[in-house]
Amino acid sequence: MDIKRLNTDDDQFWADLKGMLEWETVSDQQVFETVNGILADIRSRGDSALIEYTNRFDRMNVESMVQLEISQERLQQALETIPEAQRIALQTAETRIRVYAEHQKMESWQFTETDGTVLGQQVSPLDRVGLYVPGGKAAYPSSVLMNALPAKVAGVEELIMVVPTPDGEVNELVLAAAAVAGVDKVFTVGGAQAVAALAYGTESIPQVDKIVGPGNIFVATAKRMVFGTVGIDMIAGPSEILVLCDGKTDPDWIAMDLFSQAEHDEDAQAILVTTDAEFADKVVLSINRQIEEMPRADIIRESMSSRGVIIVANDMDDAVEVANYIAPEHLELSVDGAMDVAANIRHAGAIFVGRYTSEALGDYCAGPNHVLPTSRTARFSSPLGVYDFQKRSSLIQCSADAASRLGKTASVLARGEGLIAHARSAEYRIKD
Amino acid sequence: MDIKRLNTDDDQFWADLKGMLEWETVSDQQVFETVNGILADIRSRGDSALIEYTNRFDRMNVESMVQLEISQERLQQALETIPEAQRIALQTAETRIRVYAEHQKMESWQFTETDGTVLGQQVSPLDRVGLYVPGGKAAYPSSVLMNALPAKVAGVEELIMVVPTPDGEVNELVLAAAAVAGVDKVFTVGGAQAVAALAYGTESIPQVDKIVGPGNIFVATAKRMVFGTVGIDMIAGPSEILVLCDGKTDPDWIAMDLFSQAEHDEDAQAILVTTDAEFADKVVLSINRQIEEMPRADIIRESMSSRGVIIVANDMDDAVEVANYIAPEHLELSVDGAMDVAANIRHAGAIFVGRYTSEALGDYCAGPNHVLPTSRTARFSSPLGVYDFQKRSSLIQCSADAASRLGKTASVLARGEGLIAHARSAEYRIKD
Repeated sequence: MDIKRLNTDDDQFWADLKGMLEWETVSDQQVFETVNGILADIRSRGDSALIEYTNRFDRMNVESMVQLEISQERLQQALETIPEAQRIALQTAETRIRVYAEHQKMESWQFTETDGTVLGQQVSPLDRVGLYVPGGKAAYPSSVLMNALPAKVAGVEELIMVVPTPDGEVNELVLAAAAVAGVDKVFTVGGAQAVAALAYGTESIPQVDKIVGPGNIFVATAKRMVFGTVGIDMIAGPSEILVLCDGKTDPDWIAMDLFSQAEHDEDAQAILVTTDAEFADKVVLSINRQIEEMPRADIIRESMSSRGVIIVANDMDDAVEVANYIAPEHLELSVDGAMDVAANIRHAGAIFVGRYTSEALGDYCAGPNHVLPTSRTARFSSPLGVYDFQKRSSLIQCSADAASRLGKTASVLARGEGLIAHARSAEYRIKD
Repeated sequence: MDIKRLNTDDDQFWADLKGMLEWETVSDQQVFETVNGILADIRSRGDSALIEYTNRFDRMNVESMVQLEISQERLQQALETIPEAQRIALQTAETRIRVYAEHQKMESWQFTETDGTVLGQQVSPLDRVGLYVPGGKAAYPSSVLMNALPAKVAGVEELIMVVPTPDGEVNELVLAAAAVAGVDKVFTVGGAQAVAALAYGTESIPQVDKIVGPGNIFVATAKRMVFGTVGIDMIAGPSEILVLCDGKTDPDWIAMDLFSQAEHDEDAQAILVTTDAEFADKVVLSINRQIEEMPRADIIRESMSSRGVIIVANDMDDAVEVANYIAPEHLELSVDGAMDVAANIRHAGAIFVGRYTSEALGDYCAGPNHVLPTSRTARFSSPLGVYDFQKRSSLIQCSADAASRLGKTASVLARGEGLIAHARSAEYRIKD
């Protein structure tokens, strides 16, 4: 297969690279209008609209919301009946994700100034969170763990999962993951109608404060539209990996690491940056050999030939500069002294340090979250974490002395801005 | 003036309250199309388009970008020539805002597991941030400090401020605030064209990673549209205050605190919740008396009569429940034992604890940020802070042993999800 090849020494390098990275989601007017109608309908008619849409879109035949709720007993049953190896794997992953998340928990703090003024930040969890889980083939139990556990660690009281079951088909691994993660309620609804139900509440589904989790274009559009009424996580673009290799790792490992990203979908982007041009050739040979054994060979082939890039960098400094420019979702540092190189990375969702740390470990069980910023947004955003399910209130308690002293400063500035009520409110607390 | 009055004991209370809180920004198709055109134009033609729009919208007559940049010397000159009281007030505010912000700074961390695996979180500042400052009457120097200082404390290398100067009119206090805050570059451009320049970069204005700061509907719409290319802060709704009072504070103080919010604009919302019905009457009397002395009486009158609410609560528990439901931007606790009451507040942007802590102090110089979540979004979002200018990269370094052990778990889960390249990538690192 043909994979685009670039060289950092070329005059055209940065322009070519920019071209390869370009990605814009086309906002579809048709989708927008469909979603807009569904949102309004669920908002005004609640459960009955939700049942109608579910019957229509998921080809179900239910009459009441009771039929669309999955009990805790059913979740436990799924956990008990899946193969033991899968149960243990889910539990191992759960423990590691939870332990890592515990390190992220923000605590409230305050400090007292000499005049008795107390300033601080009061941290509290969100009350209620909705977790969207796609149905059918894209249903990933790992995604349930990654989205649910940080919320639970944050202290969210009620975590409500929605997962469509087209034609009534449920995914036992997803239910088992919900049991392991401690999800509080599960409804088998999906699409924009599920997002609307979570955002506005219905007779059966309580209104949440934030909605997280991946979904198709209808789900993503609905999330964008309810943002403001509720919080949302980021809207993810196609998945990406950048493998930075000094040429001393087994080319078969590197080829497979690139595949592990490319197999997600045709738009996924796998990039190799290496300081060793001969190594690049070896990886290409390995790619062409190993592709034959891949069940998702068609997807990988399409992804690698349309969006894959192999970049030969002049030296490690150039390679790091390229990585920082791309700000990849996943960055593998398959190099000597990888931890030192990591210290020079300014922008990346997750950094996989050293030849043994394949990105796949991070997807499932290393501990850190696999929900990561895509499409260069790691320049300004971060992996999903406990902090996404906590919020902060500023705390200000002025002593009478402080109110008098600070009131003078506030008064000067308020009058400078022409806000006289502000000034007077402060001046009332100034002692004579 | 007539102010809506509610009582928590009424059957209709929650429905009435919900009605009073409702606020939706109408998305205007005309504005959307205008902004869309401006964005595309700046993106393709850069500086020359920026100059054209600036000449047209701000009634300027410049020929090159040099005329639209304000030098550091000019900023210092503004600081030196404003009245001394204002200079000292700005510097006092700067120190306090900076000291508070320093407490928010997140540090990188990592921990090592027994098998040598290192997990962590690498925290880094954003490279470059754009700060939008409105021109004309809505130009608030306090806003410059509140937006710029957390970015500087986070370690942002380059902070670029844009501020329109309609008809060439510059605001000396705003320039002085920029000098105090350490803004790196200032361009006198505004509107959607300034947002576009920051988001895409032009020949003269470097592309930023995030844009913060308030603006009119064109600026807000432009920010929404460039989100994804760059980060943005929240899009603020009208400002709100909820004053919770046990009836033992001077009614004139409370009336003025309500005014200090209402004077912002006609859509601002001022709410009093009190457990003392007679006190409510006294505040109304004071409102009707003091309104006559207010320069912005018309705005206050319109705001208080259309969106103001006085709520008589049955007891302090009811009052706290109302406050948590409303999740106000500003919450004043003008009650006995205010710090104990604060501990029961789950949702608020900033909490002003005790009778001496007027909200105006927080607007200018108490220390915590005055950029706060509005319209009930404090249920899921937080004040602007240093963390908005930092981001985190997950760090994962597996030892050979850990990669072998974790690889088995990852392999089981990947195969359960049908992702064979993921499984193989992990399995390559499993020792036999």
